[in-house]
Amino acid sequence: MPLIQPRTLKGFRDYLPSVMIPREQMMGVARDVFRSFGFAPIDTPVLEYLEILTGKGSDETDRQIYRFEDNGGRSVGMRFDLTVPLARFAAQHIGTLGTPFKRYHIAPVWRGENPQAGRYREFVQCDFDTIGTESVLADIEAVAVINRLLEQLGFDRFTISLNNRVILTGLLEGLSLADRTVPILRTLDKLAKIGFEKTKTEMCSVAEISEEQALKVLALAGCDGDADSIFERLPEITGNNEMAATGIERLKDIYQGAVASGVPATRLKVDVSIARGLDYYTGVIFETTLDDLPAIGSVCSGGRYDNLAGLYTKQHLPGIGASLGLDRLLAAMEQLGLLPNASTPAPVFVAFFDRDYRDDYLQLAANLRQAGIGTEIYPDARKLGAQLKYADQKGFTAAIVAGGNEWSERRVQVKHLATKEAVKVEYQHGQPERLINELRNLIEQ
Amino acid sequence: MPLIQPRTLKGFRDYLPSVMIPREQMMGVARDVFRSFGFAPIDTPVLEYLEILTGKGSDETDRQIYRFEDNGGRSVGMRFDLTVPLARFAAQHIGTLGTPFKRYHIAPVWRGENPQAGRYREFVQCDFDTIGTESVLADIEAVAVINRLLEQLGFDRFTISLNNRVILTGLLEGLSLADRTVPILRTLDKLAKIGFEKTKTEMCSVAEISEEQALKVLALAGCDGDADSIFERLPEITGNNEMAATGIERLKDIYQGAVASGVPATRLKVDVSIARGLDYYTGVIFETTLDDLPAIGSVCSGGRYDNLAGLYTKQHLPGIGASLGLDRLLAAMEQLGLLPNASTPAPVFVAFFDRDYRDDYLQLAANLRQAGIGTEIYPDARKLGAQLKYADQKGFTAAIVAGGNEWSERRVQVKHLATKEAVKVEYQHGQPERLINELRNLIEQ
Repeated sequence: MPLIQPRTLKGFRDYLPSVMIPREQMMGVARDVFRSFGFAPIDTPVLEYLEILTGKGSDETDRQIYRFEDNGGRSVGMRFDLTVPLARFAAQHIGTLGTPFKRYHIAPVWRGENPQAGRYREFVQCDFDTIGTESVLADIEAVAVINRLLEQLGFDRFTISLNNRVILTGLLEGLSLADRTVPILRTLDKLAKIGFEKTKTEMCSVAEISEEQALKVLALAGCDGDADSIFERLPEITGNNEMAATGIERLKDIYQGAVASGVPATRLKVDVSIARGLDYYTGVIFETTLDDLPAIGSVCSGGRYDNLAGLYTKQHLPGIGASLGLDRLLAAMEQLGLLPNASTPAPVFVAFFDRDYRDDYLQLAANLRQAGIGTEIYPDARKLGAQLKYADQKGFTAAIVAGGNEWSERRVQVKHLATKEAVKVEYQHGQPERLINELRNLIEQ
Repeated sequence: MPLIQPRTLKGFRDYLPSVMIPREQMMGVARDVFRSFGFAPIDTPVLEYLEILTGKGSDETDRQIYRFEDNGGRSVGMRFDLTVPLARFAAQHIGTLGTPFKRYHIAPVWRGENPQAGRYREFVQCDFDTIGTESVLADIEAVAVINRLLEQLGFDRFTISLNNRVILTGLLEGLSLADRTVPILRTLDKLAKIGFEKTKTEMCSVAEISEEQALKVLALAGCDGDADSIFERLPEITGNNEMAATGIERLKDIYQGAVASGVPATRLKVDVSIARGLDYYTGVIFETTLDDLPAIGSVCSGGRYDNLAGLYTKQHLPGIGASLGLDRLLAAMEQLGLLPNASTPAPVFVAFFDRDYRDDYLQLAANLRQAGIGTEIYPDARKLGAQLKYADQKGFTAAIVAGGNEWSERRVQVKHLATKEAVKVEYQHGQPERLINELRNLIEQ
């Protein structure tokens, strides 16, 4: 029989240990941060009825859904984000769960888009949301979660940009352009990419508004500088529109609350130009960029919405949340060589030196694991050189070498793989304390 | 627009926090155990080329694969286990990875089978394998991993059943029935379910063998008792077949090595009747049953195989591994009421009592999180009774209540939610030590 070519589908990838180890570590960090704020985990099926998934994002999103008919003749699709499943989940279970409901969800999603560098058709998202409250405290907390998340993932230099949709909504209301909000927002989203003039032209044609009106919208988007000066100038731009004034006050409140709860002001930027294409945001919106990797775009985005699950239930469910694009962040770190280079999660390697002492190696390893020290035994009694080369390549910290002499002396050799230094350490089964101390010193160095 | 009915597909389920919290905890335990033995994590795409997936298990498995044509006209399928993707992965990457290669993979799989109680069409498996070695040490280690896994998951009373396929293979060789191995194994797998007589009849007809031959096969399968007596009687049953003798020696070696490495002998059972339907096992095979939940069947099964990836590469890759059916175990625990009843991962709840002190609640919570104590603030300044009811239902350990008096006194009230006892504790921003001590005492109780 001819061999089947082993390959992954276009736009998909395998995760080898050297990338999967930091990926798991990042997921663990995200979980810990979410949990520390009282967000609880949920999970939903990868497959949903197609009618649940379609018509929620743009036409483009709909085209990207992996869809098919299952054996029971049902039209089904693979989720393309974690927000639509959350809306369905909330509509179905909120009676049991009660509000406020705070959940996180770390899981893969699928989009049949054309793969680009660092972007795949399958990728993990980390979402958190607080549902069933309009409180500004939940908005402030979302900023604090994003800050803690990036900090715990090892980033120091990043910027959380904040805006409030209500300000623009108020301005448009004042200009009698409320019915043009969607095309105006979509065009505004391109400002950073295509520049002032092109945005203006496109806005006039797509949203069918006058140049004067477009200029007023762009004057708002162009209001930049430090937070204090923006908050001072915004009311002038929005004029006496009451909705805009409320929006400005709320944004100020979120900004100040975030600083009060410990988010460094240097990481916060009020940026009234960000719009976030998705139409369902109605309040504060966030984007997060890494100061040293601006090219990868926002790594954590989200915002407040008026009504999460209006398509599935009559219950009004306002909420706020954000999504960390974990795999995109990981791909960027991988490309830039920012990932540590180890392919073993255990620090200690035991060479299998002498077949007659097999059970001794097994007992020694069991003793170390009992003390919480991850330990791998080489499975074959091959030449020591080959075993130590393997240990070196995998990135173990220490190797334990023991042959007949060592076992009868009740001392084993501990080799520090980075420095090649070796010491002999007392060891007996059931009395591993000295060996454990020696290994802990090496691991913690 | 009419509402879309919020529902999951038949055979699929949502995981609410009360089940997802223990589920995440179990996955965490599995990860920690695998890592402590030096197994490294990998991940593979959910979607594979259909030709990679089909023809690997039985016809039934093939029928159960969720399959479709993607937008690029490729025939694709969703993985139905983690072993076939591992074989493809190993064929593709073993040159980079080298051997021995030890990996774990914790991920969902999909099977379009008819859902039964506690069995879903989407479920998480936890697999570990050691590839590229025939060493008995790897076999022994697999038993030690299973033991540690169940132990760390909180089980004390369980049985790991061991057999070696080589014994039966030798017996069949001696009976000149080597070419009937597959139908004989498949029938033998039903022994526990349909009994001796029916198995004998079915074996004769399906495998086209004589009653005398079937009786010899069943004499082997019927050899039970304690390990020592089985090892003594087996050679009599298999006669002077050399292959069977080697198989018996190896099984004995694995049994003794497992005991030497710390697996209690009371948890080990030599059971030459277990066959494990999958045809690719060629050496030792495992099944694990919970002594108090025998009805749910084996929760961790696996074995040794000669050649993992022969369909994709000419490189010979022997190995050994096993799979924990995590979601099936979880469903059983859920049905039996064995799961803890909490829907929050944070122990401390902060009541939002007085809107004027919002920033104080935020700072207090930030101080506690900094010390590693998960803390949730109620988002709305509602009545205290309603907030405490919420805290109680979610399963928080302690609630912190503070209003204007408390903040000016620099003391907050700490309420133990189980006993309803409350104490006042000194607290200032930046000096949370006393409060942290008080909370740690409550949490650790």
